[in-house]
Amino acid sequence: MSLKGTRLRCGLLFSPSMPTETRPILPRLLLGPGPSNVQPRVLAAMGQPLLGHLDPAFLAILDEVQARLRRVFGTRNALTLPLSAPGSAGMECCLANLLEPGDAAVVGVAGVFGERLCEVARRIGARVTRVECSWGEALDPGEMRSAINKVRPRVVALVHAETSTGVLQPVAEIAQATREADALLVLDCVTSLGGVPLRLDDWGVDAAYSGTQKCLSCPPGLSPVSFGERALRRVRRRKQPVQSWFMDVGLLGAYYGGGARVYHHTAPISAIYALAEGLRIVEEEGMAARAERHREAGRALITQMQALNLVPLVAEPLRLPPLTTLRLPAALRGAAEAKLRRRLLDEHGIEIGAGLGPLAGEVWRIGLMGENAQRHCVERLAAALRALL
Amino acid sequence: MSLKGTRLRCGLLFSPSMPTETRPILPRLLLGPGPSNVQPRVLAAMGQPLLGHLDPAFLAILDEVQARLRRVFGTRNALTLPLSAPGSAGMECCLANLLEPGDAAVVGVAGVFGERLCEVARRIGARVTRVECSWGEALDPGEMRSAINKVRPRVVALVHAETSTGVLQPVAEIAQATREADALLVLDCVTSLGGVPLRLDDWGVDAAYSGTQKCLSCPPGLSPVSFGERALRRVRRRKQPVQSWFMDVGLLGAYYGGGARVYHHTAPISAIYALAEGLRIVEEEGMAARAERHREAGRALITQMQALNLVPLVAEPLRLPPLTTLRLPAALRGAAEAKLRRRLLDEHGIEIGAGLGPLAGEVWRIGLMGENAQRHCVERLAAALRALL
Repeated sequence: MSLKGTRLRCGLLFSPSMPTETRPILPRLLLGPGPSNVQPRVLAAMGQPLLGHLDPAFLAILDEVQARLRRVFGTRNALTLPLSAPGSAGMECCLANLLEPGDAAVVGVAGVFGERLCEVARRIGARVTRVECSWGEALDPGEMRSAINKVRPRVVALVHAETSTGVLQPVAEIAQATREADALLVLDCVTSLGGVPLRLDDWGVDAAYSGTQKCLSCPPGLSPVSFGERALRRVRRRKQPVQSWFMDVGLLGAYYGGGARVYHHTAPISAIYALAEGLRIVEEEGMAARAERHREAGRALITQMQALNLVPLVAEPLRLPPLTTLRLPAALRGAAEAKLRRRLLDEHGIEIGAGLGPLAGEVWRIGLMGENAQRHCVERLAAALRALL
Repeated sequence: MSLKGTRLRCGLLFSPSMPTETRPILPRLLLGPGPSNVQPRVLAAMGQPLLGHLDPAFLAILDEVQARLRRVFGTRNALTLPLSAPGSAGMECCLANLLEPGDAAVVGVAGVFGERLCEVARRIGARVTRVECSWGEALDPGEMRSAINKVRPRVVALVHAETSTGVLQPVAEIAQATREADALLVLDCVTSLGGVPLRLDDWGVDAAYSGTQKCLSCPPGLSPVSFGERALRRVRRRKQPVQSWFMDVGLLGAYYGGGARVYHHTAPISAIYALAEGLRIVEEEGMAARAERHREAGRALITQMQALNLVPLVAEPLRLPPLTTLRLPAALRGAAEAKLRRRLLDEHGIEIGAGLGPLAGEVWRIGLMGENAQRHCVERLAAALRALL
């Protein structure tokens, strides 16, 4: 591809005298499990000049981001903030603040990210009780309740929208059992925030975390997190400080908790501009309409893919609209699927996701998240697959 | 301010029908202790469309970033990578991997960030021995050597360029004492990387971390870190896993260590585009020329400020060119300086930094970092201060 005269989106012209490494990025349709494509308004917001992290003009933007995050999470939690690191760090932030070595935790394991919750809790020194289900199915709230009543844990944790399987897990009933046992519920909302309605306060969720690169259609790099008052009481009663200085919500609260905005670390200004714009777009559309758009796109995808002999792994009532897992026909399993995904990327500019764990080589994961939850994305994917198959 | 017809840098026109919160960002000259202003090419790079974090086209950019980081750090360490979180997380990443509970550490404390090293090490469970000096002075390598020989620590840690005082600390002699005692040296390079020549390998530094928002003139949010082979051997011999899953270099190595690029977390694509462009700019200029530009700007600042009765805190041979600490005359100390800084921001669009800790109300901290290490920035600040004083 000749770069001479290639014009970037922002109007910067690349000339042959520029270093050869400076290349415009190839356009990709990102239909994997994240990141999704970023809205042009979000890219433009990120390109604005920097403000200092203590500048009143920046703090006004941060106030706005925190208020909008509360609304999209469905919470009034004061300590709702964009953690300066990706979703996996948000997971660790929730568990590392609420658990101390020796504490018991009950974790719902329904895929890769449930496994990760166990691993993170174990490293903190927690005694972890796993409640499992088959990949592609939902946790049984009755089994969760039994484990909670037996173990009497400090923390119960599960993944709302399991990105490795495409299952939307039940929350309200597990939350009730957690509250009755006087435990704290931690919810992974990485693939649900902005694509599926969340009601943390109504459900009784004590701490939650998410990412920006899925249904919010912002770049990856931040983790919206929210801690309720019961969770913060627990943190204040810890016997020993949180091992992580960077993730200690007591310290984060000095900057993000409202009030004086005392320096903790330098906030990632540009990423917060992007998140502010992404959240404005969510609220302009309205969360109900946005969720319905995700549902419609997911249904259209399944119809089109069934015609190609790709069938959904997950039964209808459990399906997660932003992420659909499709079983591959026998001829496409194993090495064949990897080759086909690579051709889809190279020849059609479309990224989709591979299966993980026991589903590796058996399924594809198709994300229709945020900006990409649209019929034309489904049509483009279907046309490309028809050409390749 | 009327927004009608205001044109953003990227050519997006804001119209009155857009949501009222979408505002172009005020231009600021950022002459505090960081962030510094971002180069327009870096902003443009960040505005490019997303690639997936496993896309071969993105992995080529990541390879390039890691190679350039090695050169600017002055190291051949394979595990040199942009950690997906700010500099404070880089600090924690180095200490949390190299220290286990009960390990001894010797920390040089010459300001706020030396104190932070102690706090982070203490939370990990290390027994910390502090070697202190007055704020504004340099650590005494002889005292560091005595402490190292007495304590026989696992880790020695210090800040190369102490952002709270503007002192460039001696490294080579302390590194030698560390190596002789078979300990590991951790070096904070947050305010030196890209502004002061670094030679990690020649000095014998085992692990180092930095930030992107200072002398690299990129947005805040990433922490370049580098681990040498001796450090990684120590990690492999740990008795217990690193508590942090997110910062465990063993796990990070699966994605960043070369080879298969196995998924760990979703890399912050846009921030890595920005860092790639920032590092290209550093290498186009050349590190020697860039360091000389920082020295010249620092000297010009001191000349101009002395004429305004603001005198350097730090003696000449110890001065850190990218960050100058100036003692305020008696009439400007305390509440007066805060008011003046606010007027400088509101009326002249210039941000400078306050003093921290024992220097609060006593000094200003002026950063001339990366893009801003230029005579015209000094002239603009001096003119604004002449108008205000």
